[in-house]
Parts: sequence; C-alpha cells; structure tokens
Amino acid sequence: MTNIVLCGGSGTRLWPLSRKLLPKQFVKIFDNKSLFQMTLERNQNHAKKFLIVTNAEQYFLAQDQALAQGCTAIDIILEPVGRNTAPAIALACLDINPEEIVLVTPSDHLIKNAKDYEASVASAVEFAKENYLVTFGILPVLPETGYGYIHFNNNDVIAFKEKPDRKTAEEYIDRGDYYWNSGMFCFKAGVYLDELKKHAPEIYEASLYAFRQSQKDGERRIRLQDMEKIPSNSIDYAVMEKSSKVKVVPCNAGWSDVGSFDSLHEDMEKNENHNAGEKELININSSGNLVMAQGKMVALVDIENLHIIDTPDALLVCKMGSGQKVKNVVEVLNQKKLQISDTHVTIYRPWGSFTVLEEGPAYKIKSIIVNPGKRLSLQKHEHRNEHWVVVNGTATVTIDSEIKTLQPNESTYIPKNVLHRLENKGESSLVIIEVQAGDYLGEDDIIRVQDDFKR
Amino acid sequence: MTNIVLCGGSGTRLWPLSRKLLPKQFVKIFDNKSLFQMTLERNQNHAKKFLIVTNAEQYFLAQDQALAQGCTAIDIILEPVGRNTAPAIALACLDINPEEIVLVTPSDHLIKNAKDYEASVASAVEFAKENYLVTFGILPVLPETGYGYIHFNNNDVIAFKEKPDRKTAEEYIDRGDYYWNSGMFCFKAGVYLDELKKHAPEIYEASLYAFRQSQKDGERRIRLQDMEKIPSNSIDYAVMEKSSKVKVVPCNAGWSDVGSFDSLHEDMEKNENHNAGEKELININSSGNLVMAQGKMVALVDIENLHIIDTPDALLVCKMGSGQKVKNVVEVLNQKKLQISDTHVTIYRPWGSFTVLEEGPAYKIKSIIVNPGKRLSLQKHEHRNEHWVVVNGTATVTIDSEIKTLQPNESTYIPKNVLHRLENKGESSLVIIEVQAGDYLGEDDIIRVQDDFKR
Repeated sequence: MTNIVLCGGSGTRLWPLSRKLLPKQFVKIFDNKSLFQMTLERNQNHAKKFLIVTNAEQYFLAQDQALAQGCTAIDIILEPVGRNTAPAIALACLDINPEEIVLVTPSDHLIKNAKDYEASVASAVEFAKENYLVTFGILPVLPETGYGYIHFNNNDVIAFKEKPDRKTAEEYIDRGDYYWNSGMFCFKAGVYLDELKKHAPEIYEASLYAFRQSQKDGERRIRLQDMEKIPSNSIDYAVMEKSSKVKVVPCNAGWSDVGSFDSLHEDMEKNENHNAGEKELININSSGNLVMAQGKMVALVDIENLHIIDTPDALLVCKMGSGQKVKNVVEVLNQKKLQISDTHVTIYRPWGSFTVLEEGPAYKIKSIIVNPGKRLSLQKHEHRNEHWVVVNGTATVTIDSEIKTLQPNESTYIPKNVLHRLENKGESSLVIIEVQAGDYLGEDDIIRVQDDFKR
Repeated sequence: MTNIVLCGGSGTRLWPLSRKLLPKQFVKIFDNKSLFQMTLERNQNHAKKFLIVTNAEQYFLAQDQALAQGCTAIDIILEPVGRNTAPAIALACLDINPEEIVLVTPSDHLIKNAKDYEASVASAVEFAKENYLVTFGILPVLPETGYGYIHFNNNDVIAFKEKPDRKTAEEYIDRGDYYWNSGMFCFKAGVYLDELKKHAPEIYEASLYAFRQSQKDGERRIRLQDMEKIPSNSIDYAVMEKSSKVKVVPCNAGWSDVGSFDSLHEDMEKNENHNAGEKELININSSGNLVMAQGKMVALVDIENLHIIDTPDALLVCKMGSGQKVKNVVEVLNQKKLQISDTHVTIYRPWGSFTVLEEGPAYKIKSIIVNPGKRLSLQKHEHRNEHWVVVNGTATVTIDSEIKTLQPNESTYIPKNVLHRLENKGESSLVIIEVQAGDYLGEDDIIRVQDDFKR
C-alpha cells in the first residue's frame, strides 16, 4: 500500500507557531515531532511507500522531516500552485500502479489511538480490495459547525452534508447516524481515476495532461501553466458525493484536526493545575492555561484559561475559546505587510537552515546549519563581506579558486565580489557562525553561479 | 546644594524587567530613560553636585547612566553591604561641608509634575536654611497600606505613623491632615549629623569611623568590616521621629514609587483602548493591558486587564491588581536557585556590556560593547579560544606582545592560554562579535593579569 500524504495548509490558525513558510503540519508540537512526522510514523506499519504531494516552498521541509523520521521510501510531487484535493490525489494516483491500494491522508491531523486507527485502516482496505472508494468517518463529540458530515447506514453512505448550522449539527449528533468527514480515504489508484474520469472528466483530463508534461528528477515537478489549467475542487465534491461506489468505515481513534489553539489545548496533556505545554512554569495561582514558549522561563500570576504562545519574534496572548480569531491577527499582519506572518527567525533552506541572531546598522550575525552531504550555491555578494567560524562539523570551503577544509574553531574570511561556496561533506551537521559586514545586507544580494537546488 | 541620591532596591517587584543586578532604578522604562536618570534630570536645576550612594555591584551602572545623562559633577560612595538609610545619608553628609544644604532623594521614584516639585524643593530649602530637617509629604490619593504616613499641622509634624491597616488608612484620608512619607529630605549636612549624634549616637560613631577608614580613589569605598559594624536603621526611625527640629512641606507633584506593575500601569500613558506600553500591538478586542516587550511583536485576542512583560529570557503574565505577587515569582526562582532572578541576557560590566546571543555544546556567541576610553582586563583563558569580528568602532587589540588596530569588518583570533586585551581608544562605542570555542565556556575561566577596575 502507498500512503498519499497531502501537505496543504496556510499556517494562519496556529500563528505564531505556524507561519506561511512553516505551516501547521511541519511545526514540532508534540515531543519535538511534527504532525507530518507523526502521520508518517503511524502509517509506516501499513504503507511500504509514501507519496508526498506538496508545494515547492515546503519541498525541502517535507524531505528533511521525512528523513529525520527514518522514511527513505518517499516520492514527492511538487505542485506550483494548489488546486484542492481532487487534482492532488489524481496526480499522485497517476504515478502509481492502478491496482495498488492507496491510503490518502492529510498531514496536519492528530490521531491519538493507534490501535483503533489500524483497525479502521484494515477495514477500509477490505472494501478497497472490492473496488470501493472508502472514506473514514469520525463519531462526532461536539456539534462542530466547521466540519462536513456523513449521513451513514452501517458502511453505506446515505449522503454527504456540508458544514451545517449549529441547530442542524445538534440534530445530527442526537440522531447518532452522522459522522464527521475526516478527509482520509482508501481505494485502488485506478478506481479513483476511473470515478474521477466519470464524474469530473475535465479535472481528470487536465490532471492527466499535467502529469504527462511533468518532469521527474528526484522529485516530480508539475509545470505552472499545466497546473493552472486544472479546475480546483475537493475530492468530496468532485467524486465522493457523486460516485455509487462509496463506503464509509468508522474511525474512533481520538482524531483531531488541531484547527486552533483551543483544539490543540484539548489534545494536550494537562498537569495538576490543568495547565498544558511548558513544564517548567512558575505558577502563582494560575490554572487551565496553554503555555508554549520554546523552553523560555514563563511566570503566571492569577491567570486562568489563556493561550500564551511565545516565539523569538512574536508573542500571542489569546483568551481560551477565542482561538478561531487568531486568523484575524494574521489578516492584520498581512494588511500591514509584516513578514512576521510568513517566516520565523529560523528560515529553512534546501541545504539546511539559518537563524538571524542579531542585526545592527552595518552587520548581521547568523547561525547556519548545513545538513550532511549538502552544499550552498556557488555564489558571491556585491555589498557584503562574510566571516565564518566553524563551531561544529567540518566545512569544505571554496573561496575563488581555492578549496580548503575547516574544523571547529577555525575561521575564514570572504571579501565581497569573491565567489565562494560552503559544503558539508561530513556525516554530522555543520554549524557555522557567519558575521556579515557591509552597507547592504538583504537576502537578495546574492549572485548564484551554480546551485544544486535549481534556484 | 548637593543631591544625595540613594540607590537601593532589590529588583524583585518589577521582575523580569528588573533583576538583582539591574534593580528598578536602572531599568529604562520611560522614553528610554531610567528612573535614576530621571532623578538626576529633575534635580539638575537646583543641585550643583550629585553624591550617589550605591553598592559595589551597581557602581558602573550608576556612573554610566549618569554620564549618559550628561552629569559629570558626580561623586560616588560605595557601600559593601546596605545598612538602610540613616547610615547611607550619614556617610554622604560626612563627605560634605556641614553648612551645605543637601536634598536626599531615592532614585526609583517617579515625579510627573516638575513645576510643583520645584516649588516644594524651594520651600524645603527655606526651612533647611533655618536648620530644620525637612521631609516631603505627599497628599494621599488612596488608603495605601504599604506606606508610612505623616500626621501634620501646616508645616509641623504631629507624628510619624508606620504602615497602617486599611481601616486606619481610610481614616487618615478622611481626616485630610495626613501625608504619605515620600522618603525625600532636605537639610544642612551638619544639622543631620548633629541630630543623628544626639538621637542615634551608635550609628553616628560607627558611620564616622567607617568614613574615616574609607579610601577615596575616584569613588569612595567603605570597608566591609566597618560597614558591618554600623547598626542598620532608617532615617525615619533613627532621627526624624525623635528630633524636635522637623518640618514637613507638601509635594503634590504626581509622585509614584513605581512599586509594582499596577503602579507602573497607572503612571503610563494609555491609548484609545486603554492599553499602555508597546505601541505596535496587534489588538483584537483587547483593552486595559500593560504590554512591555522590548519592541517584539505582540498580538492580543480578547484579553483584558493583564500585565504582559516580555524579555529575551523571561515572560511574565500577571492579572492586573496582582502586581504585588510578582515578588512571589522571584522567591520561587530563588528557591530553585535560578539565575534568571539575578541577571538579564545582557550583563553590564565596568567597561560596557555583553549579550549572549547563542550558546551551543562547545561554543558561545557574544555581542560585546566597549564604552569609549575603556578597556577590558589583560587576561587569558585556559579552556577557550576566541574569534573577534569588529562591527562598529575601532578596536585596539593586544595579543601576547603584539598590539594592533582593527576596523569594522576586520577580525582576529586568540588561542587559549595567550594573554590578550580589548580596548576602545575611540570616541564612539566599540562593538565586536565574539565567537568562543572550547570545552568549557564559563565566565569564571578568566585569569586577570591587570585590570583598571580592581577586579
């Protein structure tokens, strides 16, 4: 079985933990693991391969986190723009043997009960073998108005229902024959494509064309002009609501979409004061709070029922129950064109990451991590000189025509306009401290002569 | 007139803004000025000289902030341990012509109305000329139980009253003939010493002995063994309550002791949502909050009446009205022996300051600022190598027997066990980035061969 992992998400509802360039599924929330990594982990038992559909900006994040999770059997399809789930799943299924069973999962949901989940998947696989399109239904615990619902009779779907109003949602729960629609699916790749061709032929045809025009060089890249021609639609609207081959299996495995800090708080362990998150809190008469501060010292005095989310460059304090309004914060940031909605202090690159430690009027200090076997582009800068001090690992440094090796505690200097390259040929992470000095220090002062990552 | 400036304070009630090594009076709260600097500023009109009584740990902070404020006529008396106000003022008065009028002020209070303050001081000076000990009375606006009160009849003191209970405080306010005791005084130096000798002879004698044994080399240093022999007492108990030469002048100048975040919040300007502090707040339906975050982006969602105080290494969230409990936070930190109650990420030194930007397993990165004309000790380290990159100013660097000058964008390397020194001979601040590498990076790995600051 192949697990098709969908990596969408805009990173607005868990700001400042999530950002545009680090959406929810890649934030390390639980035990230093991301929801994306937990998705791979829980499916490693039944899937022999992972096919990750993501956008170009998050490609390297997905790849790095998958490798850190010990997943090597991964293929990646890069979408230049998102067109919702029906095309994303079509592009993935086109890359798979039609007879193979696929499990389609979002990568930003939480499932707490592994055993029940595995039983549901096993049950879904049985229906998939019989050429059904299987969806997973979650028994609702709240009259949630933000989800779609499935009216069921045993394993048959009577109807898909869009997001209901409060009263209707309460009726659904009272009746007891409605599930939440989880966004997880199981079917043979070929069956999905056949049903898509039948019920949404324009999506099928455009996806097929885009797939055939795409190039595979490690990852598969769909061309922008082809992707833009695919109609945008969800698998639910395009296929599931129309097909007669649909089955539903219940999944009562502690599912959560972690859609807000309120939802996250419910999913986290609480201490004796009903506080969640940071364990080393200084607590004076405070209870029921979610505190996430990346290990920073936090003291609470007479505080109840708040979300307190601290990061190096942004702090959110939000009343519990108002978590849905966090997207309004991001809207304000976007209106003000503040980059703080897009990136963290630490920025991920295909070769690793860098963190800006300090900026002054004519200098900038970065901590740079280069992953094993990776190298930055061969580049030069017009406006800045750079000092590098190696603090961990071994650096292979090209400066002009000279190539040298630097060990921890060794340093070098790169004057402006001189071609240079930083490479980690070792097996552990290379960490260097870079001090930039110059009259202009923007990230766009970079002239790339050669780049492993086609930038 | 000389202004005797008392610099006590333990830095617990405004934590995490204040710390043991940066007590309240030195924190830059209003318009990037400290309360200490505002004290000098408001007394610069009437005082021709400042005599600052402080402890050894805060000596350089006081000196640097006074210089930054443009005060050059300062003398400093260093107390190795604090013995309350009666001895501190005695040691200061012994250093002054007995006929000279002194104005004694704390350095951690706020006075908002300069004109009314000056009128009070002028009135006090007239009584001081007639050999009275003058205290300043604040017309109470609240039945505050944390202050001492003065029962007055015009300029005469009927009685000093210790901190009253709530009911008594309310009676005082209803009567209208009680002031708050402000802790500010005005008298001739000799008159105070005469009255101290009369009413607390053991404090007078021990202070006189300690003063005579002290050394003046720039600052005057009282010896520890002498200071410890002086009985600890306040000027109120030791002198003012006993002397028959006491007068009180009213001071209705918007006085505040900034004794908690509640008090600070009252003293600060509010915006249209009654929020104070950070101006660039992202505000979703939040009002009545005090937010201080050193310019960091803060977003509030449905938050009312909180103190939110963020610093690089500690965050306090405290219900408004619970400000007095912040000292309980510091007690917990002290019990846990956490240094975060003592120091900030930025640590002040006699020659300037340094900030730890990042620490790793075998490296530490510091931003170091050396004030003009200052130099660090001639020193060496047993366990670490250091890389220096100059980013502002000009560094005069001694390495072993070599002395060289480094401009911005130049760097150097100091291997372990090699004697070195960093000096700023220029007129602007010298800023260097130091990358330390080694197996042990504690501040105590330092062997000083020569030091301008007698360390």
